[in-house]
Amino acid sequence: MSLPTTFAIALPDWFDDWLADQPERFPAPEDRMRAAVELSRLNVERGTGGPFGALVTDERGRLVAAGVNRVEPDSCSSAHGEIVALSLAQARLGTYDLSQHGALELATSCEPCAMCLGAIPWSGIKRVLCGASKTDAEVTGFDEGERIEDWTGMLKRRGIEVVTGLLQDEAAAVLRDYARRGSRIYNAG
Amino acid sequence: MSLPTTFAIALPDWFDDWLADQPERFPAPEDRMRAAVELSRLNVERGTGGPFGALVTDERGRLVAAGVNRVEPDSCSSAHGEIVALSLAQARLGTYDLSQHGALELATSCEPCAMCLGAIPWSGIKRVLCGASKTDAEVTGFDEGERIEDWTGMLKRRGIEVVTGLLQDEAAAVLRDYARRGSRIYNAG
Repeated sequence: MSLPTTFAIALPDWFDDWLADQPERFPAPEDRMRAAVELSRLNVERGTGGPFGALVTDERGRLVAAGVNRVEPDSCSSAHGEIVALSLAQARLGTYDLSQHGALELATSCEPCAMCLGAIPWSGIKRVLCGASKTDAEVTGFDEGERIEDWTGMLKRRGIEVVTGLLQDEAAAVLRDYARRGSRIYNAG
Repeated sequence: MSLPTTFAIALPDWFDDWLADQPERFPAPEDRMRAAVELSRLNVERGTGGPFGALVTDERGRLVAAGVNRVEPDSCSSAHGEIVALSLAQARLGTYDLSQHGALELATSCEPCAMCLGAIPWSGIKRVLCGASKTDAEVTGFDEGERIEDWTGMLKRRGIEVVTGLLQDEAAAVLRDYARRGSRIYNAG
């Protein structure tokens, strides 16, 4: 018998074109969130995954890595935008612990689901910016899973800053647009 | 600027040799757990990752995919044994939703951490067998994260069976051995 021994997750083809248009730095939190939301919107428009985008930046606001949801195209239920962005940042820096490279930040177009919330403390990231809320995601049909009640408090107790509701309207609009297009809500059966 | 656009997770070199010695079927739950624990032990002995192993089997007990912890060697904080096994099963079957292929089972040498618990409902797996407990993991220094209190009830309400404490002593012994060797506990700083 032979079994697969590797799996890989890849960003969509359009990513390098997007990257070519980006500034060297994203100085303000809103700049980082705007980019995360733009990634989520492009992923919907190009049909390359679910309506979620994320980016990891360093203390000077420079892009370390970006991610979009790749669940359907890469046949991987864990390929959420946050996991993709964090894993690409770790691949680039050659470490499973991003805290080795200063206080890096994750900006995500939507609050983390239960899985991504659990992944954040393991990643070594030190700040999380969130756009759309769990409720925004759930009203469009996405299942966000069962998070512990005080999830922001949990992250803070672990030394991870959290900002929620940043550019929430723009971020939630991408989710609503995805649902309106009748795009497939991809939670497992 | 250029950024990485793919990341990959790979099983260790010794995996194919292990696989060559396996039976066509693992008929009893204990057979599946014994294999998961053996993978966790081999991963420690060969120095190829953390002390965690998992396998995905079909309704007839045939191996669909297996995983071990690859956090350190693959520089990826999400490469826990369960995520690796589920992702490889999904890669093999070409779907993010394992429920398309019947009632598949995940056997894991240790209860899922908060991240892996969140990942289980997204995977389409229908039964989870657990060996060592969260406490077994934590006494050896691993941080399992903040799971919701009634985590087994949450899975059951989602139609996922859960068995805990299967071959718990054997599974916990691997964790203790890892800690005794002074191997690195890899939670992020």
